[in-house]
Amino acid sequence: MRIGVLTSGGDCPGLNAVIRSVVHRAVADHGDTVVGIEDGFLGLIEGRSRPLALDDVHGILTRGGTVLGSARVARERMRDGVSRAAELAANLGIDALIAIGGEGTLTAAQLFSDAGLPVVAVPKTIDNDIDATDVTFGHDTAVHVATEAIDRLKTTAESHQRVMVVELMGRHTGWITLHAGMAGGAHGILIPERPFDVEEVCRMVEERFARGKKFAIVAVAEGAHPLPGTMRFAHGETDAFGHQTFGGIGTRLAGEVAQWLGKESKPVILGHVQRGGTPTALDRVLATRFGWHAVEAVHKGAYGHMTALRGTEIRLVPIVDAVTRLKTVPEDRWIEAEAVL
Amino acid sequence: MRIGVLTSGGDCPGLNAVIRSVVHRAVADHGDTVVGIEDGFLGLIEGRSRPLALDDVHGILTRGGTVLGSARVARERMRDGVSRAAELAANLGIDALIAIGGEGTLTAAQLFSDAGLPVVAVPKTIDNDIDATDVTFGHDTAVHVATEAIDRLKTTAESHQRVMVVELMGRHTGWITLHAGMAGGAHGILIPERPFDVEEVCRMVEERFARGKKFAIVAVAEGAHPLPGTMRFAHGETDAFGHQTFGGIGTRLAGEVAQWLGKESKPVILGHVQRGGTPTALDRVLATRFGWHAVEAVHKGAYGHMTALRGTEIRLVPIVDAVTRLKTVPEDRWIEAEAVL
Amino acid sequence: MRIGVLTSGGDCPGLNAVIRSVVHRAVADHGDTVVGIEDGFLGLIEGRSRPLALDDVHGILTRGGTVLGSARVARERMRDGVSRAAELAANLGIDALIAIGGEGTLTAAQLFSDAGLPVVAVPKTIDNDIDATDVTFGHDTAVHVATEAIDRLKTTAESHQRVMVVELMGRHTGWITLHAGMAGGAHGILIPERPFDVEEVCRMVEERFARGKKFAIVAVAEGAHPLPGTMRFAHGETDAFGHQTFGGIGTRLAGEVAQWLGKESKPVILGHVQRGGTPTALDRVLATRFGWHAVEAVHKGAYGHMTALRGTEIRLVPIVDAVTRLKTVPEDRWIEAEAVL
Amino acid sequence: MRIGVLTSGGDCPGLNAVIRSVVHRAVADHGDTVVGIEDGFLGLIEGRSRPLALDDVHGILTRGGTVLGSARVARERMRDGVSRAAELAANLGIDALIAIGGEGTLTAAQLFSDAGLPVVAVPKTIDNDIDATDVTFGHDTAVHVATEAIDRLKTTAESHQRVMVVELMGRHTGWITLHAGMAGGAHGILIPERPFDVEEVCRMVEERFARGKKFAIVAVAEGAHPLPGTMRFAHGETDAFGHQTFGGIGTRLAGEVAQWLGKESKPVILGHVQRGGTPTALDRVLATRFGWHAVEAVHKGAYGHMTALRGTEIRLVPIVDAVTRLKTVPEDRWIEAEAVL
Repeated sequence: MRIGVLTSGGDCPGLNAVIRSVVHRAVADHGDTVVGIEDGFLGLIEGRSRPLALDDVHGILTRGGTVLGSARVARERMRDGVSRAAELAANLGIDALIAIGGEGTLTAAQLFSDAGLPVVAVPKTIDNDIDATDVTFGHDTAVHVATEAIDRLKTTAESHQRVMVVELMGRHTGWITLHAGMAGGAHGILIPERPFDVEEVCRMVEERFARGKKFAIVAVAEGAHPLPGTMRFAHGETDAFGHQTFGGIGTRLAGEVAQWLGKESKPVILGHVQRGGTPTALDRVLATRFGWHAVEAVHKGAYGHMTALRGTEIRLVPIVDAVTRLKTVPEDRWIEAEAVL
Repeated sequence: MRIGVLTSGGDCPGLNAVIRSVVHRAVADHGDTVVGIEDGFLGLIEGRSRPLALDDVHGILTRGGTVLGSARVARERMRDGVSRAAELAANLGIDALIAIGGEGTLTAAQLFSDAGLPVVAVPKTIDNDIDATDVTFGHDTAVHVATEAIDRLKTTAESHQRVMVVELMGRHTGWITLHAGMAGGAHGILIPERPFDVEEVCRMVEERFARGKKFAIVAVAEGAHPLPGTMRFAHGETDAFGHQTFGGIGTRLAGEVAQWLGKESKPVILGHVQRGGTPTALDRVLATRFGWHAVEAVHKGAYGHMTALRGTEIRLVPIVDAVTRLKTVPEDRWIEAEAVL
Repeated sequence: MRIGVLTSGGDCPGLNAVIRSVVHRAVADHGDTVVGIEDGFLGLIEGRSRPLALDDVHGILTRGGTVLGSARVARERMRDGVSRAAELAANLGIDALIAIGGEGTLTAAQLFSDAGLPVVAVPKTIDNDIDATDVTFGHDTAVHVATEAIDRLKTTAESHQRVMVVELMGRHTGWITLHAGMAGGAHGILIPERPFDVEEVCRMVEERFARGKKFAIVAVAEGAHPLPGTMRFAHGETDAFGHQTFGGIGTRLAGEVAQWLGKESKPVILGHVQRGGTPTALDRVLATRFGWHAVEAVHKGAYGHMTALRGTEIRLVPIVDAVTRLKTVPEDRWIEAEAVL
Repeated sequence: MRIGVLTSGGDCPGLNAVIRSVVHRAVADHGDTVVGIEDGFLGLIEGRSRPLALDDVHGILTRGGTVLGSARVARERMRDGVSRAAELAANLGIDALIAIGGEGTLTAAQLFSDAGLPVVAVPKTIDNDIDATDVTFGHDTAVHVATEAIDRLKTTAESHQRVMVVELMGRHTGWITLHAGMAGGAHGILIPERPFDVEEVCRMVEERFARGKKFAIVAVAEGAHPLPGTMRFAHGETDAFGHQTFGGIGTRLAGEVAQWLGKESKPVILGHVQRGGTPTALDRVLATRFGWHAVEAVHKGAYGHMTALRGTEIRLVPIVDAVTRLKTVPEDRWIEAEAVL
């Protein structure tokens, strides 16, 4: 068979490990030809591809990013692409496509599959927000990076009696913040799933200081939001230390805490550090297994399906099961975490 | 309630995270008293304990080892201890015990539980050999450390045209070697579950050299063994380079490969580095969750049970389910791994 | 002798290693008594101290922060403290003081020394801005952390065709940015010592894109400043992507680049992650050596001196030599760095 | 100019960083042509080379190993090569050679230079045994890796009351062991420069146990040797635990300690992990600076010289100054270290 493979969406450690695994399984074991499509769906639409042989994936297992690139496609162009799905496949000479990506990619994969380009998907997300799989590669690396940062902040906060507010990735879900907050031993964990009372956060910190623990680490997801009316400063106002409190929730919350405590409080905005670089061992293994199973799915003709981790097994599940609902942090996970705050 | 907690068996990153979590959940949320028993079952038998308050577990989340210590108990003494189980509990003034440990601990926990000291167990093993749970804390850290080592060896092997044989932990099961071998991109993965033909390994390396890939990484579990008659040198014989091939399988295999290829080959014996030091984020989270659920199990009276990960959920399973069978690497996991060798 | 020891100023990985080394050398080798003074000069003035025996420094070598704490002292209170220097020493019963800290600490140390409290200083700074020593502990750790971040950003920038602006510590000097920028292979290195033309930076990035290298990493010290008139947006204005460009130079520069290129550009503000956590091996060794030599200096009566690294040797230099001039990045170091941008 | 560059000798993190820096400085700044010579002096003799343009060194800064390869040359062949030095240069069309390597390479470089192939050298050694430079790249990475291993071993040794013997690289000099031992807080540091009394080591450990510190870490250089007559077991004899004590000094010393204490003692042989993988930030910066200065040296015609770090400056020193004497650990460095054992 001739199998196309593309990566799409934001960066996620493990993409290259999937590509390598697909090539190994398809080329070496099945005698397939693998075609690497450049820049995600954009390359699919524009017919930009290159052959991927075993030598082409040598040394990429440990590398972050994606050797195939990834780019955004305007909605209209995508719609047009879908309408010409079979033609695009014919142009590239591929019998099937393995699409590696997040929620948007999964949705697109389904559309292309319905429109006559048989697609198997491999889910990726650092956010852990894709339903129908226990987890996917990338998340563990993001949590690892965020936890290392919290570990470093903790000793400095403690000896210098500081409050640190670490803003972590997660616009719609709090998984990175939940996991890194638990792993790093944060004293506050604020996630999009649970709007928070700014005063309550300030009081928690104040009570720690009153008990003699004169420091605190607050982990806040970029998408966490305060309950209406609980923030003291409007965007751009000046706090007690003469700093304007702008920007993301991390920076603004640091300003609020500073004002409340009468004590400087520092924001740390890790940003894209969480989604780049070499994947953790766990993410490499999971990505490698996903690649293997994606090739098998193609050979079984399980189109419209994606690889999923269930317990210790890799299963194939309908793509639609994964995209109908965002996987958010459930109540019981929150309750577990609360005990160690 | 008054809850005793002990750690037993070999070291495993995450023990302190369980202890901390038990204390937080029991003391802060349930108002229990927690008694830390020193040096595992030895301390239980000798009545050595100390109270564990919130302050006593401050800062231990990220630390390797166990603040409670762990020591071996002679079989006879253990038997005697079990026969006085209720008396030991009364001496320490505990209503229930949370025992954190590996296979031996789980078995002992069951015996004490049967004999009148109510026990809930938390499984630990870096080897991933405990059945009835998807995985437990410690394994991810061991794989992480082993993978980092392989990452480092790979670049040096490649540029200096060397064969490296990395011996990893795993006397009876090959999980660490399987996972680190896959994550590190090893060219050979040798595990106890699959006795190997030494000649075949040598020939695989030779073929890589013939194809122009003039290096190889072989990951071998300490408990992997060659098929009878496939090893050229007896223990202690001298190889082509004047080195005697002694010691563990890693060192001996390096000697065999060297002889076959006429090319020096280097063993690396990571040893206890794999079971010490700070746990990975994943292990900290899992250990913390296990601690929480162990306390809940005590409050529910679910004695004779242990915490287990099933998918993303923590469940309580009968201890006997975990100790009847060693969890070994199944055929299908091996087949997946083989594709990327 | 009775030797007091204090840490003062901002956090710096290696402080605990110095304290441990002082105690080992003084107590175990010289038979001295060591008194740990809490919260820096504040504790000196308030007479807060505790004895430091060998057991008190067990396990602190690898820990970030300072077990002695550090706090700010109002200028007036400090002046008053200096005037009572001998009295404070008598209160604490110390014959000499080892003061570990940055520029401010060194100045204060000199004043106390002149006023009758014999002081030996140990310089610390993550910024590498202290003159009269080749380097001091803390800087290598800061550079290590910043470099790891750039390593992670690079792969994601490359595969996703992004510009990343990393803001690193350094208000007055660019050493961290110079070293991490070189080590991480940044394409722009902007430091306080060389005001930069914003347009030139934008054009450099543009040219990379034109040459087909569709990504760039710009490392900018928090204290770097643009040449007057070269910034397009005033503070708080809205860029092409609807983001207001506020805050530090990193965030604002990302806005400028985005506007110029018509391409989103991401800031990463590492912040205090750079000054916390476990020190690198190099910083631990240097801190340990400094501690040893500080004790020797006390026994030699070399008051008013500080430890300094010169080549591979530790020397004692007059404190005044270190505080008269900030050590900035010289022209020739810049020229070396420029070659690999 | 046309400048050849080669790497020779064992692996050393930072080789690629030098190559990259040479190409950047020579090609981009001077307009030179750079010729990469494959497999060290072997490639020089066999005339195997490839052009190195800017694109060829993209992405290699962070990678371990050497993209040019390195191989051994038989002594005779080398001698023959030297005698044809000018001819070899003519064949490759190079005006000068930058040779990156250890002691052997430096000696060879001098010979080639004398014989009419103008050579500038860049010293590399993980062992820190090259005189005339404060340090060179590779050593910091080796110490970093060894220290991380000791950090991990320490927590497990402490909680499980174990003695761990870590064998580190260093056949003739103890620098890695000295630095990693100090950084990791080892309780014994055994180096080639100071033959040790096995009984004394055993007694030190015994005394720790007697004082209630029931664990110990002993760092031993592979080239350290016991004083004659102080080892109890001959090579291959069986210790108290039924293990034969073979192999390197680490394994044998672990056996001796085990016998003395009546307590199992574990060796860890890190091996080549210390010389592979990504360089530390410090090694990358130093390697980059050396590359820059090597190109300058070529343009100045400073043949027969090598780059050297002196304090914070890079100097050019005659190669002969570096190869006449092995740089060993001096007495005063040992005394410093002893204080914290």
